Amino acid sequence: MARRSHNSADRAMPKPVTVSVDAMGGDAGPAPIVAGMAWSAAKNPDISFIVFGNSETLEKLVSKRSVLAGRCEVRHAAGVVTMDTKPSQAMRNGKGTSMWEAIDAVKSGDAQVCVSCGNTGALMAMSMLRLRKIPGINRPAIACLWPSRNPGGFNVMLDAGADIRADAEDLLQYALMGSSYARVGLGLETPRVGLLNVGTEEHKGRAELKLAHDMIADASKSAPFEFIGYVEGGDLPSDRVDVIVTDGFTGNVALKTGEGTAKLISELLKQAFNYSALSRFAALLALPSLKRLRKRIDPRRVNGGVFLGLNGSVIKSHGSADETGVSAAIKLAFELGQVDFPARVAARVASLSSPVQGDGPDTGQAYGTSK
Amino acid sequence: MARRSHNSADRAMPKPVTVSVDAMGGDAGPAPIVAGMAWSAAKNPDISFIVFGNSETLEKLVSKRSVLAGRCEVRHAAGVVTMDTKPSQAMRNGKGTSMWEAIDAVKSGDAQVCVSCGNTGALMAMSMLRLRKIPGINRPAIACLWPSRNPGGFNVMLDAGADIRADAEDLLQYALMGSSYARVGLGLETPRVGLLNVGTEEHKGRAELKLAHDMIADASKSAPFEFIGYVEGGDLPSDRVDVIVTDGFTGNVALKTGEGTAKLISELLKQAFNYSALSRFAALLALPSLKRLRKRIDPRRVNGGVFLGLNGSVIKSHGSADETGVSAAIKLAFELGQVDFPARVAARVASLSSPVQGDGPDTGQAYGTSK
Repeated sequence: MARRSHNSADRAMPKPVTVSVDAMGGDAGPAPIVAGMAWSAAKNPDISFIVFGNSETLEKLVSKRSVLAGRCEVRHAAGVVTMDTKPSQAMRNGKGTSMWEAIDAVKSGDAQVCVSCGNTGALMAMSMLRLRKIPGINRPAIACLWPSRNPGGFNVMLDAGADIRADAEDLLQYALMGSSYARVGLGLETPRVGLLNVGTEEHKGRAELKLAHDMIADASKSAPFEFIGYVEGGDLPSDRVDVIVTDGFTGNVALKTGEGTAKLISELLKQAFNYSALSRFAALLALPSLKRLRKRIDPRRVNGGVFLGLNGSVIKSHGSADETGVSAAIKLAFELGQVDFPARVAARVASLSSPVQGDGPDTGQAYGTSK
Repeated sequence: MARRSHNSADRAMPKPVTVSVDAMGGDAGPAPIVAGMAWSAAKNPDISFIVFGNSETLEKLVSKRSVLAGRCEVRHAAGVVTMDTKPSQAMRNGKGTSMWEAIDAVKSGDAQVCVSCGNTGALMAMSMLRLRKIPGINRPAIACLWPSRNPGGFNVMLDAGADIRADAEDLLQYALMGSSYARVGLGLETPRVGLLNVGTEEHKGRAELKLAHDMIADASKSAPFEFIGYVEGGDLPSDRVDVIVTDGFTGNVALKTGEGTAKLISELLKQAFNYSALSRFAALLALPSLKRLRKRIDPRRVNGGVFLGLNGSVIKSHGSADETGVSAAIKLAFELGQVDFPARVAARVASLSSPVQGDGPDTGQAYGTSK
């Protein structure tokens, strides 16, 4: 279908992107983060880095990776935001931490996108403080990719946990921001948007969802997305929707439930194949098949929650991400950096007050001049 | 651990249980429902049925199953509640439908438990109308079993979708009712209860959750369950909790997300094994292992959402349940029928106003005389 095809123009001429990296946020310290940077650098000549953290440690790690030579600036940051740091503490005392400085590199224009494996709440609070919300946006959101039956292999879900509540107006903004992200992240011209609810009949659900339903339906008339109405939890991996909109509480529970279910099944599969000598032999033969499956649902391949609604791009990588996961987040950062993503989202949100016929900067026609 | 051991006394002397069955509610009509009844009857001599629906159709189906002879009364009900029926319509016009009459058989005492594969909203609305809420209960809930890493293989989650909201008082009642259900359904003396939230730190989450947290912690001091505090979506299958408490909106999204994820993985697993001649051969050898896995997470094995908080036991089976699924729901009905489950829940809720030291009827000591 033409309307859901890739915007090949978006990919035509890659431009250089500098990614600022908070190297101190991950569970396993800076080593897997620098390894992920090196991996990305080897695959993509148009990417360079500014990395923040303990400069002595980082210089050592970076100097071991020849592929990073001349493409990775180390900047010292003494402080570290821990996983226990409350968002309010992070905002008051965060200056000088690797997280704060990595965000500030986007604010100053030294980098186009920031990647951190750190504490989500602190990262969002600091990002809001330093980058500020796009005019017209009430609550920023975190968008994540969800393995699906669609040809591209993924759907977008938001909010994955930036805020614990959302009113109808917020959900409408999530629909706009999420479809902008699907155009860039999934290459879809006219993403299909669904609103997460407990039943597909229109008489079910909470009052704010009914209001949001009507507001999104209205907006879809003048915006480049198709609104398919309510969807249910079972539709998150479905091929009848591309962007699933929900509040951050529900979205976070859904995300962790999906990850938890996948993990349980993978453990049980291992147990099942470890049951007898025959089943262990079968597992050996089945290994390529199991690897194909794993590759398809590997959470490391879809690593990276994108913060939407800020004047700058920030990507939250899993705290436990290894080099594959970090590299996936950096790849996403590169794609967002290609198109000046925050400007697209801002234009889309602004278009709500003065609707235009799908020719705003996020349809892939005007972005080249939008910066 | 002794405190989590099975109440073997509960299983000592089975007493006869009559299950009233709404035969017209399922997606595939009455045939798989009668087949499931026959399956259960063959496995359990202490079970008998009253089945409601088109008597001509049902007499034919029942007469073909010799195991049901003398153990299954057919009662004619002309009306059928369809999947599109709104709960309000069902309450106004439901009299004479197979669903209404099946519920009424529990009200009249002809049966101890009702099983229906029909429309959840209509079934809950009618059940509330006919059986009434237990004194002190504000919102009834639907409890479901969730495949888990616990020795018994399952956790309890509620509310799976009876209502779309719940305040702190409701969540406390869910904790009490859910732990009563875990004692009967999972045979645990002191179930561990967790409150679903987006973070395990106590500073996160919605205001009503903080209040519920404190209320449940207080109640756990005098009730036979252990409160472990907040849990996240990833803990639904975990072995550090037995009962997960949440509102019906979040619970329903989580349930359908979990089912949807399991279904996606199972499809991808099939694709992976269908990739080449070698992988198809491997699949053949792996078949017993895959069957073991399937048995472990097969939703048909955990079929049956139990309605909690009513003066009578009602079980909602999946609309698409086949005979295995229907039989699983009937097995659950038999277990609830063994212990006069609603009386246990009522005693537990009543004990909140006058706390007792874990010796109420739902600890498995007094149920024999409670009816």
